[in-house]
Amino acid sequence: MSLKNGKQYMESLRKLRPNIYKFGELIEDVTTHPATQLHIKSVAHSFDMAFDEEQSGIFTTTSFLTGKKAHRWNTLMTCAEDSVGNARLKRAQYNWSGTCQGATCAGWTMINALYDVTYKMDKELGTKYHERLKNYFLYAEENALAMAGLCTDGKGDRTLPPSKQADPDINLHIVEKREDGIVISGCKVLICGVAASNEMVIIPGSGYGADDTDYCVACAVPRDAEGITIVEARHVSDERDMEEGWDVPRGAGSSVAYILFENVFVPNERVFMAGEYQYSGKLIGDFICIYRGAFGGCVTGQGDVMIGAAINVARANGLSQKVFQDKLTTMTINNETTYGLSLGSAMSGKKSESGSFLPNPLIGNVNKTHIATLPYETKRICQDICGGLVENGCIPSYKDFQSPIYGEKLLKTAAGAVDGETRVRAARLAEWLTVGGGIPGCMHGGGSQDGAKLGIRALSPWNAYADNAKRIAGITRDLPDPVKKK
Amino acid sequence: MSLKNGKQYMESLRKLRPNIYKFGELIEDVTTHPATQLHIKSVAHSFDMAFDEEQSGIFTTTSFLTGKKAHRWNTLMTCAEDSVGNARLKRAQYNWSGTCQGATCAGWTMINALYDVTYKMDKELGTKYHERLKNYFLYAEENALAMAGLCTDGKGDRTLPPSKQADPDINLHIVEKREDGIVISGCKVLICGVAASNEMVIIPGSGYGADDTDYCVACAVPRDAEGITIVEARHVSDERDMEEGWDVPRGAGSSVAYILFENVFVPNERVFMAGEYQYSGKLIGDFICIYRGAFGGCVTGQGDVMIGAAINVARANGLSQKVFQDKLTTMTINNETTYGLSLGSAMSGKKSESGSFLPNPLIGNVNKTHIATLPYETKRICQDICGGLVENGCIPSYKDFQSPIYGEKLLKTAAGAVDGETRVRAARLAEWLTVGGGIPGCMHGGGSQDGAKLGIRALSPWNAYADNAKRIAGITRDLPDPVKKK
Amino acid sequence: MSLKNGKQYMESLRKLRPNIYKFGELIEDVTTHPATQLHIKSVAHSFDMAFDEEQSGIFTTTSFLTGKKAHRWNTLMTCAEDSVGNARLKRAQYNWSGTCQGATCAGWTMINALYDVTYKMDKELGTKYHERLKNYFLYAEENALAMAGLCTDGKGDRTLPPSKQADPDINLHIVEKREDGIVISGCKVLICGVAASNEMVIIPGSGYGADDTDYCVACAVPRDAEGITIVEARHVSDERDMEEGWDVPRGAGSSVAYILFENVFVPNERVFMAGEYQYSGKLIGDFICIYRGAFGGCVTGQGDVMIGAAINVARANGLSQKVFQDKLTTMTINNETTYGLSLGSAMSGKKSESGSFLPNPLIGNVNKTHIATLPYETKRICQDICGGLVENGCIPSYKDFQSPIYGEKLLKTAAGAVDGETRVRAARLAEWLTVGGGIPGCMHGGGSQDGAKLGIRALSPWNAYADNAKRIAGITRDLPDPVKKK
Amino acid sequence: MSLKNGKQYMESLRKLRPNIYKFGELIEDVTTHPATQLHIKSVAHSFDMAFDEEQSGIFTTTSFLTGKKAHRWNTLMTCAEDSVGNARLKRAQYNWSGTCQGATCAGWTMINALYDVTYKMDKELGTKYHERLKNYFLYAEENALAMAGLCTDGKGDRTLPPSKQADPDINLHIVEKREDGIVISGCKVLICGVAASNEMVIIPGSGYGADDTDYCVACAVPRDAEGITIVEARHVSDERDMEEGWDVPRGAGSSVAYILFENVFVPNERVFMAGEYQYSGKLIGDFICIYRGAFGGCVTGQGDVMIGAAINVARANGLSQKVFQDKLTTMTINNETTYGLSLGSAMSGKKSESGSFLPNPLIGNVNKTHIATLPYETKRICQDICGGLVENGCIPSYKDFQSPIYGEKLLKTAAGAVDGETRVRAARLAEWLTVGGGIPGCMHGGGSQDGAKLGIRALSPWNAYADNAKRIAGITRDLPDPVKKK
Repeated sequence: MSLKNGKQYMESLRKLRPNIYKFGELIEDVTTHPATQLHIKSVAHSFDMAFDEEQSGIFTTTSFLTGKKAHRWNTLMTCAEDSVGNARLKRAQYNWSGTCQGATCAGWTMINALYDVTYKMDKELGTKYHERLKNYFLYAEENALAMAGLCTDGKGDRTLPPSKQADPDINLHIVEKREDGIVISGCKVLICGVAASNEMVIIPGSGYGADDTDYCVACAVPRDAEGITIVEARHVSDERDMEEGWDVPRGAGSSVAYILFENVFVPNERVFMAGEYQYSGKLIGDFICIYRGAFGGCVTGQGDVMIGAAINVARANGLSQKVFQDKLTTMTINNETTYGLSLGSAMSGKKSESGSFLPNPLIGNVNKTHIATLPYETKRICQDICGGLVENGCIPSYKDFQSPIYGEKLLKTAAGAVDGETRVRAARLAEWLTVGGGIPGCMHGGGSQDGAKLGIRALSPWNAYADNAKRIAGITRDLPDPVKKK
Repeated sequence: MSLKNGKQYMESLRKLRPNIYKFGELIEDVTTHPATQLHIKSVAHSFDMAFDEEQSGIFTTTSFLTGKKAHRWNTLMTCAEDSVGNARLKRAQYNWSGTCQGATCAGWTMINALYDVTYKMDKELGTKYHERLKNYFLYAEENALAMAGLCTDGKGDRTLPPSKQADPDINLHIVEKREDGIVISGCKVLICGVAASNEMVIIPGSGYGADDTDYCVACAVPRDAEGITIVEARHVSDERDMEEGWDVPRGAGSSVAYILFENVFVPNERVFMAGEYQYSGKLIGDFICIYRGAFGGCVTGQGDVMIGAAINVARANGLSQKVFQDKLTTMTINNETTYGLSLGSAMSGKKSESGSFLPNPLIGNVNKTHIATLPYETKRICQDICGGLVENGCIPSYKDFQSPIYGEKLLKTAAGAVDGETRVRAARLAEWLTVGGGIPGCMHGGGSQDGAKLGIRALSPWNAYADNAKRIAGITRDLPDPVKKK
Repeated sequence: MSLKNGKQYMESLRKLRPNIYKFGELIEDVTTHPATQLHIKSVAHSFDMAFDEEQSGIFTTTSFLTGKKAHRWNTLMTCAEDSVGNARLKRAQYNWSGTCQGATCAGWTMINALYDVTYKMDKELGTKYHERLKNYFLYAEENALAMAGLCTDGKGDRTLPPSKQADPDINLHIVEKREDGIVISGCKVLICGVAASNEMVIIPGSGYGADDTDYCVACAVPRDAEGITIVEARHVSDERDMEEGWDVPRGAGSSVAYILFENVFVPNERVFMAGEYQYSGKLIGDFICIYRGAFGGCVTGQGDVMIGAAINVARANGLSQKVFQDKLTTMTINNETTYGLSLGSAMSGKKSESGSFLPNPLIGNVNKTHIATLPYETKRICQDICGGLVENGCIPSYKDFQSPIYGEKLLKTAAGAVDGETRVRAARLAEWLTVGGGIPGCMHGGGSQDGAKLGIRALSPWNAYADNAKRIAGITRDLPDPVKKK
Repeated sequence: MSLKNGKQYMESLRKLRPNIYKFGELIEDVTTHPATQLHIKSVAHSFDMAFDEEQSGIFTTTSFLTGKKAHRWNTLMTCAEDSVGNARLKRAQYNWSGTCQGATCAGWTMINALYDVTYKMDKELGTKYHERLKNYFLYAEENALAMAGLCTDGKGDRTLPPSKQADPDINLHIVEKREDGIVISGCKVLICGVAASNEMVIIPGSGYGADDTDYCVACAVPRDAEGITIVEARHVSDERDMEEGWDVPRGAGSSVAYILFENVFVPNERVFMAGEYQYSGKLIGDFICIYRGAFGGCVTGQGDVMIGAAINVARANGLSQKVFQDKLTTMTINNETTYGLSLGSAMSGKKSESGSFLPNPLIGNVNKTHIATLPYETKRICQDICGGLVENGCIPSYKDFQSPIYGEKLLKTAAGAVDGETRVRAARLAEWLTVGGGIPGCMHGGGSQDGAKLGIRALSPWNAYADNAKRIAGITRDLPDPVKKK
């Protein structure tokens, strides 16, 4: 079996040991608990789409490794079309759920990034990582896994490397190397989609030097492995997910977790890097490269929903979209800019020696700077179109609308050109997208804007630009970058 | 007595009949109920500041009508300095509480706006509104009132005037004119600070024509008048206000309400407009003018807190503000732009015939367009500086940090260069300001950006610009705006 | 022969009848006259690059029609790589010359656009246009032509179609249809690269209706055909092109012309549309689509030079690029955004039925809105980095620096960390790029930003967005765009 | 006499020794030479306006020192209204001429800045500068002087102070102190309005330290003093000023000069600082403060003309301003933002101990950052509205329109809804404003944007912001800015 439907996927989750908490309490069944079920519901939908005539081309592809049809998030990306397929998948998922779907994203990206890095390690160091990685790829495909991807550590004092932190466990690290595997402890934080995943793929949080070899660990672990405790973080207005009514849309929900590792054993066949610090920079670099190459799909997918939400509120208010056309067009420009740059980074990407595909990192970094700004403008415009209702705190609760004393009257005040419930539902979606639980991590997901700018700086041929301009200006003398005078 | 301290003010609120609901339940005591107490706490602080040596110059002024020292929000503004005083008061209040303080704002603005309108009505129509308004001013001053201001109606279908709506009660209107007063029904929505107010001042929601005379009503009513039911709307993450711990800052909270009127009687001495539709446009215009003249103070006051919050998170992460200096400077530029334009609209304002002061509406409208955009950029930068923690859903709940099973470990993961609690508290403030309950109504408060643009269009001398350019260009022939060909 | 070098190309221009004027005077030899030689010099360089080992892959490609190596601007584009090749060619040309090179751009784009349109016309109307067009393609390739492209008409009153204009000749039109061809009169304006072209390709200036069939004319004419008079327009500071010295860089120059047609005969084999108004909309649409798909290359190519120019001025001032790194990175972000979107529009383009390739028009239109804004910001930053010198009027003339009285002293005042001449040359390039003759037509070239927004509006599935958002919001009732009430 | 009309003013210029050159040639009479007459014409208009009933309130005021009516640019500014008067004067001048009028600006600003600095120096050092300055003020008023202001030096290597430059004369400095005065040599560059001035006021180019005392010189010299040679720099398209016809508007012109000093003697009564380096920082600071306080007037004044120019081109094209209303409104928002902030900096300015008035420097610096960006957007929009005609090089020369061969036909191609000449004139004004000689020094005039940001950084209470946010967040521990770890 390399394809599962949503029901089968949910069954696979129910077999896992409960080790996820929220509000201080253990979640017994993630597929029914209000804090996690919405996110899982949208992942289940992605599984179901493998069997949908119209959409299966988006949600599945032919596996490069086996030649079989597989869930797209279980396959190796080997060409520009695959990179576009990644962006298209994300756009479709966001279109469905309105928000981020971590369990079919970062883990997949990581095993793709590991493909070429393990190949190079094996070639240069004589290790066996690439073979293991390939086997894990086949295992993931065969079992149709949902995989979270763990990168960000606790970090502690941002000016110090892991080995200099007061608490060694603030970053995930190897505490023991055994014959049959490694033992790891520490934590990973801000991780998306863990509750909806079967397994967790792990890479180091940054490129490290020789003093931090223990922190250079890449591997895969079952979500419920012994020694792992997971805490779901709170998102904006998250209590509403626990309530009845329409104060939050029921389509989907995001999920972010903190993961505590306490002497977790990882057998050798699941270890893909264990101390080879010289490759940690390339690993994080390739991960970011693939991630940023497709990130435009996420942002655009949510932007599509914001456009629709804004149009609906306007209509509920009795106003034609013509009134807001220039604003809606700007929303689309923001959307298609990030999507188009994802396509552009695919168009100018390259196949690696090992056969995996890497989108153009310069364009990916440029796109990251837009992803950290344009969706904010799109949200602002969405609120602008929707009117005061959506800004913050301007709609009474569902319970108030049900009050036997004043509920009926109150609902009448909420009517526009349509009934109050319709108008409130339309507004609640816009609120959820712009100041609610639907907000995804545009700013820091896939790394920060400042990190992207460093990438842009490193990837641009400044001296070649200067030399070419010298030629046009007719300057023949040397004009090097000045060195500081003392 | 024309000055109250915070305690006296809270006592005055406790004397009112309970008529405010949230989550379907009646709030018995607004000064202690978690949904309303935070907002009242910040208003109480403003009352206390009347007696603070350093701050009393901001929070009080000499009453133009009585010559006595009075709470600033009970006085008539008669000069540029008073208008600046309004902006300064707001900045100080936001600095204190981090958010909007409706009960010392819109009601005050409305009685100022009514000053000149009632003067003109009396002069031209022989009515007695101005005298009544003056008396109400004295009453407010003498009793040191907190006054909410009610403008926005339910509106219904935005393309139709009140009299054409399916439900006449979707807008507030006069249902009966009696010898001794008027009777009003309908609703006002999205009203700030009602729970913290003693009285509510009311003006029409827009400028109306002859078909909508019943909707042209201005008056003042006690918050607990017979026939009034108030529903507090939900703001972002508002359940946290009900909880223990640090998931929300305890400084203050905003408050927005829906107000249902059912045959509420208003005695003549509290009625300031009752059908004189020809003056409704000026009334709403003057209200907006005064409001927009000082709005820069709100936005800047919150921006100040966002700058501080961002610096604190950076420091908690171990990073100097130097790393983010350019971003912090941009935040200040955004801040001082809106504040400076408030000052600029005061500098070029004018005294009305009746003696009240009207800031420059062109600059006020221009400022409104910035207020609807710049704070959004400031928020985005705040999130950029703070890191992923603040975007959405990236911090575990207070309860999780208290877990006997994993709480201690979890708290260690949250440490930066300082302990976890400090870092989380710093981040929660930034979250509250940018995607939480602290978000004020920058976009639609004081009217929409599009409305401001219409104002700018109406107030700009386009033909004079064109004629002057013709002169410089050496064009002597007529060059009128083309009329459409058929 | 299908490849020429620069010398051969210039010889071909010298054989043409002189019919170009500037400043009221006939230009006898365009290859030596100061008003036209700089532009021709850069086109000649493009011809030479066909024989350059490193660059020939950019400047030539394999002809789809003949299988031979040909100048890229003489070939049919049939796939995404060809579209990228177009953008890459433009970037390389701008990198060389710093400005627009019309003679290898618009004419080429037009014969590509005509490829599918003529195919459709022949198929549906039984005409013979496609065969003629193909022959013309072969003729262009065989003769290695530089081709200007003529689209924009005089237009007159913008609210009226051509047939309603007071003067019929303000737009180019067919005045007679003969057995052997057509006779055309009127004018085309704002045309790039005419002086450097062998031939001119012509298409209608817009999509027209049945009343304007005479204006629906597409054809090709030799630049010096009987009845054609050409006037070179003035560009910014263009007298400097006529002077000695360093007040303008000598690398290249742009060229824009007005072209007057007076009963010009075009033989049938060069006519590709003659009245088929139903296809005029598609023709202009496809032209814009191909043009906008590659336009990012132009803008980026000039942006590269602006970055280099700014770095050089900074260095001449003694300042390291580090001081301005954030600004330089923003320049690169602007650059790569437009370039990346060109790549993205290629990645998602489509092959037409006839075999030509059309980049994605939605992304192309989105890119056009950036092209109309981002280069302006890039220029502003270039001036910011360069200091006051470049803003306007802050450098003395070359003649002043040569003055026997004060020249030497003056040149010393212009020194920075390097000699005065070097610093002035560096600054003059930045000036030429930002407020001088090097400014290309970012705003209106390839159509206006407003036109692109209309395209975006037409190409976006607004109702699908709204319906999808309805689903997520849980709204089940109809919510159509409101119709206006009377 | 303290008021002159334009004719008297021009006479006063003609009495000066010719010492201004352009294109290597001496200008015998600045009032008639095409390179300088346009600028002088607009200054003359400002003199004439002293006698204009409507405008005299803008162009004159009551002298604080003598109580007499005086040209505004000869008076001491002592209150907020005076600062607003400065901005209003500039807006009116730009409205008249479309561009910068240096001779009534910087010199005036400098003697205002010197007022408090000389007062402090005298008080603290026992010097006599303040009395001299006052006398010079009276002299300027009595003789109704136009005064240029000289600040920027040649600078050389930007990383080194004046005393470390290879050439000491690249900055202006004292070469000898004599009993009766000082002797100065070196140069000042990028100086506006010199050709139109009677006198030149001089201040140091920056705040200096003890090693650079000789460069701390402030004084006043006649424009034609012995030892002074002036070179007019070239501005964009400046040859057009020398031509007949309509290729440039004839209203006015800017003027920027390089000034070479060779042993120029300045008698003591005209010396206001001579080595007191400790005050050089305050002097430059106060100068910038006053300058930036009024700079909004310049920018807005030109923006007004750009709006008018755009409307005229649109009308000439047959299009109503409604088509472009949103763009025009944005132009006004940009305009009134900079103007409103000038008013705001006046409203919150302060009287100095000596009695002069200093606008708020924080708001002035914030405004400077807008002045370095918003007018660029305004220009871009102006070009957007005007169409391709104005971008660069898209209008034939006046001479071509006069050609007996094709002139008439060509002029017909330029017609829109009006005749060709009118349309071209309208377009040429827009061109002159956006890519022509009318561009003023928004970017670096009054110092750079980066300098303004340093000012903003220095003037903002960052720690107070952080402490206040700590209070709201409930953080009680210390949270200082981290010190770098080694």
